[in-house]
Amino acid sequence: MASILVVGSVALDSVKTTEGESVEALGGSATYFSLSASHFAPVSVVGVVGKDFPVKYRRLLEKRGIDLSGFHEMPGKTFRWVGKYGADVNEAQTLETHLNVFAEFKPKLTAEQARSEVVFLANIDPELQMEVLTQMRRPAIVACDTMNYWISSKPEALKELLARVNIFFANEEEAKKLTRQPNALRAANVLQEWGPDVVVIKKGEHGALLKAGRKTYAFPAYPLEQVKDPTGAGDTFAGGFMGYLASCNGFGDLSQLKRAMLFGTVMASFTCEEFSTARVEALQKHELHGRFDDLAERLSVPVDPVLIAAN
Amino acid sequence: MASILVVGSVALDSVKTTEGESVEALGGSATYFSLSASHFAPVSVVGVVGKDFPVKYRRLLEKRGIDLSGFHEMPGKTFRWVGKYGADVNEAQTLETHLNVFAEFKPKLTAEQARSEVVFLANIDPELQMEVLTQMRRPAIVACDTMNYWISSKPEALKELLARVNIFFANEEEAKKLTRQPNALRAANVLQEWGPDVVVIKKGEHGALLKAGRKTYAFPAYPLEQVKDPTGAGDTFAGGFMGYLASCNGFGDLSQLKRAMLFGTVMASFTCEEFSTARVEALQKHELHGRFDDLAERLSVPVDPVLIAAN
Repeated sequence: MASILVVGSVALDSVKTTEGESVEALGGSATYFSLSASHFAPVSVVGVVGKDFPVKYRRLLEKRGIDLSGFHEMPGKTFRWVGKYGADVNEAQTLETHLNVFAEFKPKLTAEQARSEVVFLANIDPELQMEVLTQMRRPAIVACDTMNYWISSKPEALKELLARVNIFFANEEEAKKLTRQPNALRAANVLQEWGPDVVVIKKGEHGALLKAGRKTYAFPAYPLEQVKDPTGAGDTFAGGFMGYLASCNGFGDLSQLKRAMLFGTVMASFTCEEFSTARVEALQKHELHGRFDDLAERLSVPVDPVLIAAN
Repeated sequence: MASILVVGSVALDSVKTTEGESVEALGGSATYFSLSASHFAPVSVVGVVGKDFPVKYRRLLEKRGIDLSGFHEMPGKTFRWVGKYGADVNEAQTLETHLNVFAEFKPKLTAEQARSEVVFLANIDPELQMEVLTQMRRPAIVACDTMNYWISSKPEALKELLARVNIFFANEEEAKKLTRQPNALRAANVLQEWGPDVVVIKKGEHGALLKAGRKTYAFPAYPLEQVKDPTGAGDTFAGGFMGYLASCNGFGDLSQLKRAMLFGTVMASFTCEEFSTARVEALQKHELHGRFDDLAERLSVPVDPVLIAAN
């Protein structure tokens, strides 16, 4: 079982949705990713928090076995995000962003972290993502995510990073914007030409696309009647995806990548069921595997003996 | 093999998309449905055209073995629709609608049509849909579609119809509007309570949902890099779905319904590849089954022996 290093944000989120609200709850890309991936493989986080970061949240992460030795505490306040969602849960509206100590984030890996086999560079400045990568010894799998802000402000740094990445996660809109392509499929083709062997395009409630080799594999989201809070769904998806691959000790096999898509889908669906990390942090193994099996069963289309005979 | 009766519009469409345009090409819900379904089972159409309906289009339908004995020619002009699509192929913009002879459409079934085992009531006035239904002898499967116009103008007639229908096809936005529900899943639940055993919610490029029994099955669209003209994709989907069920001589089996979803998906994808009915009318059997197998293969997620052992 390979170990995973994740570098990204740790935040306190205040979120309003049509189903309720949360105040200064645990958030951040590294947090969602690591809680999700911790259900599959050992995870170590590199991140920064302020003096005000609640001990209970630190305990919560430790309880999931997440290594916090790279969790830097700096004088000042923890990164805060305030946002809301309307009836369309696919679109977050940012009301406030206070970077606080996160503005000074300079990720520095320990010798052990530098030896991690799998690394996930969450959506921070692509120049910082590259700095982390240069500190790594010889990772077997490098994956990254990004966000609109970096696509607009540092597209060239991002392209340089992509040339050194195995797996790239992006939202549909981000992928289209970055590549200037009219649809997700063509965007994935262009992204793959820039470097990554595997491109995953996340489409929120409409599921996700996997581009691996020459083919694109579309998977639906797990059907949910109620979405309480979609914050972190994308990072939780990446956590399930990368966590499963790390547990396989390898990557490149299409069957593994498809299962990784389903584990990502399942983990994202759990995240949406409660505010903040509540559902994912308390998730039981039988719930996770039960939903995986349920999703796989819903997607399975048994062959028709009559059809086979007629062909 | 059961025979299918379809009642709906026959039109001449002029369509502009980012990929080109068509002028007075063959269109209409009954046309797209019957061309699609004709690849699976015998189809008979009830529709109306004007004196100006081109003979070449009549021949085109006959060439696919479609029974046109219920194709009424009336003095006047054929129904015309002029529309365009922007970068978002999910949304058609209607520029002109000329109902012409379609405004006087009063479907009247022949004795043989009234004995059809499977009937598809395309998106015409729900009162006309009901009139057709009362003329039927004892159909094994009744399916219908509708559109925003009837949801706004005749919701009660539509609800009455749904109480007598086995399968209801609706677009996501239409389903949410008709049921006043915030998402497709909850909309499908409500629709099912109103009557249909099976509800299919079409989501364009994002695929479709099947609600059958208590569960919802989400399927992605077939990945297409280029959409030339999405007109008729929904009716072609219904044609593939109903055509396959008719060829099975039965319905209720979940595996059959899932395969029907895939055949619908495949037929809709072909429609989008060319303007008007060009791709579907000339489709070869091996292309159809080849794409079905390809889609089923893309969706299949082989079990992980390690995972099974660990569970």
